[in-house]
Amino acid sequence: MKEYSVIGKTLPQVGSVAKATGSAQYINDIILPGMLYGKILRSHHAHAKIINIDTSKAEKLHGLRAIITSKDIPMVKYGMGFDEYAITPDKVRYVGDPVAAVAAIDEDTAEEALDLIEVTYEELPAVFDVEEAMKPGAPIIHDAAQNNIGYKLTHVIGDVEKGFTKSDYIREDQFETPMVQAAFLGTRGSVADFNPVTGKLTLYTEATMTFIPLPWLARVLGIPTNRVRVIRPYISGGFGCKSDIITDFSLCSSFLSMRLGKPVKIIHSREEEFITCRGREPLVYYLKTGVKKDGTLVAMQCRHINNAGAYLHRSPMYLRHNVGVFSILFRCPNVMFEGHTVYTNTIPSGALRGLSNNALGWGQQQHFDMIARDLGMDVVDFYLKNAHQNGDVTAAKCKFDSCGLAECIQEVAKGSKWKEKRGKLPPNRGIGLAASGHSCGSRTAGFDLSTAMVTVDREGSVRILSGRAESGMGSGTLLVMCVAEELGLVPEDITINEFVDTDTIPFESGNYGSRGTIQQGNAAVAAARDLKRQLFKVVAQKLGVTVDSLEAKNRQISVKGSPDKGMSFEEAVKTCWYEEEGALPLLGRGAYNPPTEDIDLETGEGNSSIAYGFGVQAAEVEVDTETGKVKVLNVVTANDCGKVINPLILDGSSEGGISMSIGMALLEQISYDEKGKVLQTSFSDYRLPTIWQQPEVKSIWVETIDPHGPYGAKGITEVVSLPTAPAIANAVYDAIGVRITKPPITPWKILEALKEKERAQDAI
Amino acid sequence: MKEYSVIGKTLPQVGSVAKATGSAQYINDIILPGMLYGKILRSHHAHAKIINIDTSKAEKLHGLRAIITSKDIPMVKYGMGFDEYAITPDKVRYVGDPVAAVAAIDEDTAEEALDLIEVTYEELPAVFDVEEAMKPGAPIIHDAAQNNIGYKLTHVIGDVEKGFTKSDYIREDQFETPMVQAAFLGTRGSVADFNPVTGKLTLYTEATMTFIPLPWLARVLGIPTNRVRVIRPYISGGFGCKSDIITDFSLCSSFLSMRLGKPVKIIHSREEEFITCRGREPLVYYLKTGVKKDGTLVAMQCRHINNAGAYLHRSPMYLRHNVGVFSILFRCPNVMFEGHTVYTNTIPSGALRGLSNNALGWGQQQHFDMIARDLGMDVVDFYLKNAHQNGDVTAAKCKFDSCGLAECIQEVAKGSKWKEKRGKLPPNRGIGLAASGHSCGSRTAGFDLSTAMVTVDREGSVRILSGRAESGMGSGTLLVMCVAEELGLVPEDITINEFVDTDTIPFESGNYGSRGTIQQGNAAVAAARDLKRQLFKVVAQKLGVTVDSLEAKNRQISVKGSPDKGMSFEEAVKTCWYEEEGALPLLGRGAYNPPTEDIDLETGEGNSSIAYGFGVQAAEVEVDTETGKVKVLNVVTANDCGKVINPLILDGSSEGGISMSIGMALLEQISYDEKGKVLQTSFSDYRLPTIWQQPEVKSIWVETIDPHGPYGAKGITEVVSLPTAPAIANAVYDAIGVRITKPPITPWKILEALKEKERAQDAI
Repeated sequence: MKEYSVIGKTLPQVGSVAKATGSAQYINDIILPGMLYGKILRSHHAHAKIINIDTSKAEKLHGLRAIITSKDIPMVKYGMGFDEYAITPDKVRYVGDPVAAVAAIDEDTAEEALDLIEVTYEELPAVFDVEEAMKPGAPIIHDAAQNNIGYKLTHVIGDVEKGFTKSDYIREDQFETPMVQAAFLGTRGSVADFNPVTGKLTLYTEATMTFIPLPWLARVLGIPTNRVRVIRPYISGGFGCKSDIITDFSLCSSFLSMRLGKPVKIIHSREEEFITCRGREPLVYYLKTGVKKDGTLVAMQCRHINNAGAYLHRSPMYLRHNVGVFSILFRCPNVMFEGHTVYTNTIPSGALRGLSNNALGWGQQQHFDMIARDLGMDVVDFYLKNAHQNGDVTAAKCKFDSCGLAECIQEVAKGSKWKEKRGKLPPNRGIGLAASGHSCGSRTAGFDLSTAMVTVDREGSVRILSGRAESGMGSGTLLVMCVAEELGLVPEDITINEFVDTDTIPFESGNYGSRGTIQQGNAAVAAARDLKRQLFKVVAQKLGVTVDSLEAKNRQISVKGSPDKGMSFEEAVKTCWYEEEGALPLLGRGAYNPPTEDIDLETGEGNSSIAYGFGVQAAEVEVDTETGKVKVLNVVTANDCGKVINPLILDGSSEGGISMSIGMALLEQISYDEKGKVLQTSFSDYRLPTIWQQPEVKSIWVETIDPHGPYGAKGITEVVSLPTAPAIANAVYDAIGVRITKPPITPWKILEALKEKERAQDAI
Repeated sequence: MKEYSVIGKTLPQVGSVAKATGSAQYINDIILPGMLYGKILRSHHAHAKIINIDTSKAEKLHGLRAIITSKDIPMVKYGMGFDEYAITPDKVRYVGDPVAAVAAIDEDTAEEALDLIEVTYEELPAVFDVEEAMKPGAPIIHDAAQNNIGYKLTHVIGDVEKGFTKSDYIREDQFETPMVQAAFLGTRGSVADFNPVTGKLTLYTEATMTFIPLPWLARVLGIPTNRVRVIRPYISGGFGCKSDIITDFSLCSSFLSMRLGKPVKIIHSREEEFITCRGREPLVYYLKTGVKKDGTLVAMQCRHINNAGAYLHRSPMYLRHNVGVFSILFRCPNVMFEGHTVYTNTIPSGALRGLSNNALGWGQQQHFDMIARDLGMDVVDFYLKNAHQNGDVTAAKCKFDSCGLAECIQEVAKGSKWKEKRGKLPPNRGIGLAASGHSCGSRTAGFDLSTAMVTVDREGSVRILSGRAESGMGSGTLLVMCVAEELGLVPEDITINEFVDTDTIPFESGNYGSRGTIQQGNAAVAAARDLKRQLFKVVAQKLGVTVDSLEAKNRQISVKGSPDKGMSFEEAVKTCWYEEEGALPLLGRGAYNPPTEDIDLETGEGNSSIAYGFGVQAAEVEVDTETGKVKVLNVVTANDCGKVINPLILDGSSEGGISMSIGMALLEQISYDEKGKVLQTSFSDYRLPTIWQQPEVKSIWVETIDPHGPYGAKGITEVVSLPTAPAIANAVYDAIGVRITKPPITPWKILEALKEKERAQDAI
C-alpha cells in the first residue's frame, strides 16, 4: 500500500478550536450597523383560507419599521413542485405557514407587532395521514395535485409476481416512520443586507448548499443573479436540514431589507424551529419479499408513500433516492418499487442525514431479520448470502467500483462476538444487526461539481479557497490534508477560508449526500497538483532536470530519492514569484465532476453517484421489562470508507452518527394534535440522546480503496448513522421478543407490546 | 483605426452612485461588534529622548481597556531605511511621533487617557532645514546616518563640465518646494480585528497598495503572513498618501487588538492627519543648464536634496524616480544628477500624485521658460526643438515606444492661441507653458504585477475579481469596459468586487505611479480572453466550426461576419455549465508583469516603466497687483494618453489634476514653527482650491496608441496634474515680470516681489 505522510494521520478539525472557544462566528453573531430584527407571522391553522389581513394596529407600533404580506412581494413560486411562496397569498397549508413578516428595532417589538396583526381565516378540513390524503374525497391541499399526489414513480426489474411464485417463503410487513428533526444547537436564520443604491443583496445564511440554488433565489427575489451575494458563516449543525438558501426566513429577511434598505436579521426561536424545520420525511411503506429456503432472495416489492407535508420542496428527490436504496444491499433478480409523494397539512419534509434511507432502512432491516428468523437462519449468513459484491450493478443500476459490504458484515460479526451472543445472552438482553449502503454524492441536485483553488503567497503560505460547507464533518480538514499531502507540506502550513462568499469563492455544489470526501477531496487534490505542476516547471528549469523526476516531500521539492538535489518549498515559491518574468501568480485550480448519470424521473433508476459507502452495525441492548426502558449497551460498527484519511474524524463521525440514530430509535419524533399543531416545541418534549445514552462504540474501518475517491476514500457521514436504529429494534426483539414497527421505541410502546405478547401467549 | 463597441465610450464610474448617495462603505463605516476605539499618543517635541512613560493615572480611567508603549510590542524596524517602529522606543524625531497607544470603549475616553499619560522627555536640538542638517555639527537624528544623509545617488551621462564649456549660454537657478498634503476628505484609519483563538488578524484599511507590503506587515506584527488578512473598503481619496498598509495607526490598532482580542478602530482626527500625513516630499534643488544660441540643450545639471523628514520611509524611491524625470522631456547629451535624501525633524515624507516629479517640475519648467526668454526664443519653439520623440531612450535610459510630447506642445499652442497671447495680453495678464512626462507604473516597489480573474455564473453574469484600489481614478470602470469589449457584452452585464480582500482576491501590486491603466487593463483583457477561449472552444465544437472563426459581439458568440451562425453569450455559458462533462467552472485568469528593469540603486538609471505619459499645459492668469491675488483664467491641456478609453473619466481626471496643482501653485503648504510644530492643522490654515478657483479647462487627448497598453492606452492620472503649477508660475511672470521660486504663490509673496522689482528698477 502506498505510503502517505499526511493521509491516514490523526489531525484535529480545522476550526475546532474556534468553535470550542466561542470565537467562531455563527449566523447569530452576524451583527451589522443599523440592523433591524425581523419576525414571521405564521399560521395557527393547518388548513384555512386567508380572508383578510389587518395590519393597521401593528403599523402604529413604535419601533416597527415594516410589515410585508404576500401583496408586497413578487409572486414567484419555488420548490420542486413550484407550489410555494415566501409568504402564502391565498391559503395556509400547515401550522407554521408564513402569512406576514415584520421588521422592527428589536426582537421584542417585532414579536409584539405579530400579535397586533389580525388575520381572518376561513378554516378548511385538514388531512394529516398520507393514506387518508390519497383517498377520494379527502381535502385537496393543492388544486393541481389530484388525490394530493405530488409525484409518483414505479421501478420494475424482472417480474416480482413470477418471483413470488418461485419463492419458498414470502413475508409481508408494514412500517411507518415519523418526522425526525436535526435539532441543531443553533436555530436557523439569516441576515439580509440590501443596498438600495447598487441594488445588491448580501445574504448571510448557514446553508450547506450555497451555490446551486442562487439563481433561483435571485429569481424569487426579482433581482439579477449577479446582484445576489451569499455569505456563509460557521454552521451550528446542519445534518441536511440547513441545506437551502431559499427558505421563508431568508426570503422574508431579504424582502424586508429590500423594502427598508437596512440589514434585517431573522433568527428562529426554538419553538419556531420545531414547527417549521423540514426534518426527515415521514414514510409509510409495505414490504413483500420472497426467498428460497436457503435464504436466497428471489423477489422484493415495496409500496412506498412519502409524506411531503404542505409543500413538495425536495420530496421527489428523496423518493427517487430510495429506489436506489431499496436494492442497494442485496442481489435480487425481481424488484418492484412503487412510490408516491403525498401532500398533507403537516410541516413540509426535508433531508436529514441519510435522506429517507434511514426511514426505509428502519423497516427493511427488521424485515430481513424476521425473514432470517422465519427461515431459521442466522441473519449474518442471510446477509452474506445475498450481499452485493464489488463490480455489481444493482437493480436500480447503481454501479459498485468498490464494495466492502461482505467484509463489513464479517468484521461486525467478529467484533461483536455475534455467534457467541445471538440468542445466548441473559434474559432481557439481545443483540441485533443491520446494514446500509448509501451514495457518495448525487447528480439529482442538478450538479455534482466541486472546485477548489490553492494559492501560495510570496512567503510560501498556502491558502485553499473552497465553497464547502463546514458543518462538522471535517470537510475543511480533509482539504487541508489532501493539499498538504500533494505539496509535501504539513497541515499547519495551509489555511482555508472560514466563511464562504459566493462573490469570490469558486463554485461548489455543497455538502450533502456524503459527497464532500470524494468530490471536494478530488477537487483539492487536482488544484494542489495544478499548483505543483507550476512549481515543478520552474524548479526543474532551475535544477536542469525534468519535471517528472521531481517530488514534493518534507517541505522540499527535489529529485526523487535525492533530497539534497532540490530546494525548499519556500525557495521554490520565491523563485516563481521573483524570477519568473511575466508569470501568473501561483494559483492551482481543480474541479471534480463525476461521470455519473441523472436519475430517471419516472423510475428512479440511474447511477447518479460515483461511489457507494457501506456500513454494518451490531447493537446490544438491555430492556427493563418493568419500566419499558431500552438501554443500548454497545455498538460495533464496520464501515467501508474506501480509505481512512483521518481516523479521529471518522471515529467522531461514527460515534455522532450512532448517537443520532439512537435518538431516532428511542426518543425522537414530531407528532401533531388533532388540529395539526406540533406537540414538540422544546427540548423537554422533543428529547435528544445525550452522553448518558451513548453506548460503548467500536468503529472498524474497511479500506476498499475506491478507484474514484481521493487516495481511495469515500464519504461515510450518512452510512455510519444508518444501521443503528434497526439494529436496536432487532436487538430489542432478540431480548424480549417484541417488534416495534413505528419508532421511537418508547417505554410505553414496549410495555404495550409486552402486554400484547402476553395476551397472545395466554390465548394460545 | 480599430472599431470598438465599448472602448472610447463615455461611461459613468462604477461605484459612483454608491459614493454619491452615501451607501459606499469607507473605513469609518466599518463597525464591528464589540469594537473598541484607539488613539495614539504623539510627541509634542520635534527631537527628544524619552526618559520615562508613566501610565498609572491613565490605567485607572473607567472605560479604558489597554495602553501599549514600545515595551509591549516586538521591536521590528520597517521602512526603506529600517529606521522606524510602530511606537518609538528611545527618542522622538518629529512632532507627531507615536509614543503610546490606548484602546477604550469610546473615542472620548481614549482621548482622555492620552491626557493622563505622563511622558518625561529630555529635549534635544532639532533641525528642520535639509542644508542645515547636512552641515557638520548638526543634530544627528539617526545614529547610522552621518550628516543626516539617509541615501544618495549620482547619475552621469556624457560630461556636463565639457558641455557647459561648449554652451553658448548657461543659466543657474535654485528652487524649493514645501510639503503638500493630499488632504483627502476622509482621514486615514484602520480597524484591526485579531482573533486570539485562530491567531488571525483581519485589518481593514484603505491602502491603495494592499498586497506588496503584506509580508512585511506580518513580520512587524510578529505573526505568519497567512494569519494576516487585509480588507480594503471604499477609499475616501488616496492620491498616493494612502498607499501603505504599514502605518503607525494600522500597527497600533493591530497591536491593541492582539492584546485585547477585540476589534480596535483608530481613525485620525483632521489635526492628527495634518501633523502626520506623509505628503509630497519637500525639495531643495539647484539647476544649471547650458544651451546653444538656437536653444539646443547641451548640458543639464541638478543638485537635488530631498527632505525625508524624521524617517526614510520611501524617500529613496522618490529620489530615484526624479533621476528619470529630470531628463524625461528633452534630448541632452550631457546630464548630471546628484541627489541626497536627508533626515530632518519634520513629518516623514511620502508620495502625492506625481511623487516628487511635481516638485522638480515646478522649478525645471520655470528654468526652461527663463532660458528661452534669455535667448529671446518663444518657449514653444524651445520645447519643440529639444522634445523627445518616439523611439528615444532618455539619458536615464527610459525607453519610449510611444511619445506624443511634440504633438501635445503643438496642440496646446494651437488650443491656447499661444502665438496670439504670449506677451500680447492686457496688463497684469499673462500666459505660461509647462510640460511633463511620467512613468506608467514602476518596478521600484518590488513588483509591477497586476492580475485579474473573470468568472461567469450559470446565468451568464460576469464578475471581475481584482485587487485594484478604487480611489477615484476609475480603475474598476476601466476593467469592466475592457472585459465587456473582449466578451462582446455591455458594461451592465459585468460586476466587479467593491472591497478587496487579500484572502480571496488575486495578487495586485496596487494603484500608484499611474500604473492602473496599462497593468490592470492588460490583466483584465488577458483574463477576459482566457475566459473567451474556454467559451469559444465549446461553441466551436457545438457549431462544428474552428475556434478562430468565432467572435464575441453584441452578446452573441458567432462566426465572424455571420451573426446568425452562433448563439447568445448566455446560451454559450449554459452549454459550458450543463453540457461539458468534467469541465472546470468558467474562470478566466490574466496577469500582466511588464518586461521592464529595476532602477539602479546607485545611479537611479533604468527603464522601470513599460510606457510613459506626457502632458503639456498652458495657463492664463490675471494678477491683482493691489491685493497680490492670482486668478487662473483658463488652462488648455494636451495629454498623450495613448488611447482614450473613457472620455468622461479622462476629462474628470484632467480637471481634478489641474485643481490639485492650482492648490500647490497658489495655496497649499505644510510649514513649521521654530519648535517643529506644524502650523496648518485645519482647513482654515491649510487652504484647498474649491470650485471658485477652478478655471475653464480645455482637455485635448493625443492618441499615440502605445504598443504595450490595453488598446494602446496609457495611465495619465499624474501627468495631467504635473504642468499646472509651473505653467501658472510662468504665466505670473508673463503677467507682472516677477518669479516666485518657492510655492505657494501667495498674495504676500507677489506684493513683496513687486516691491523688490520696483526697488531694483528704481536702483537702475
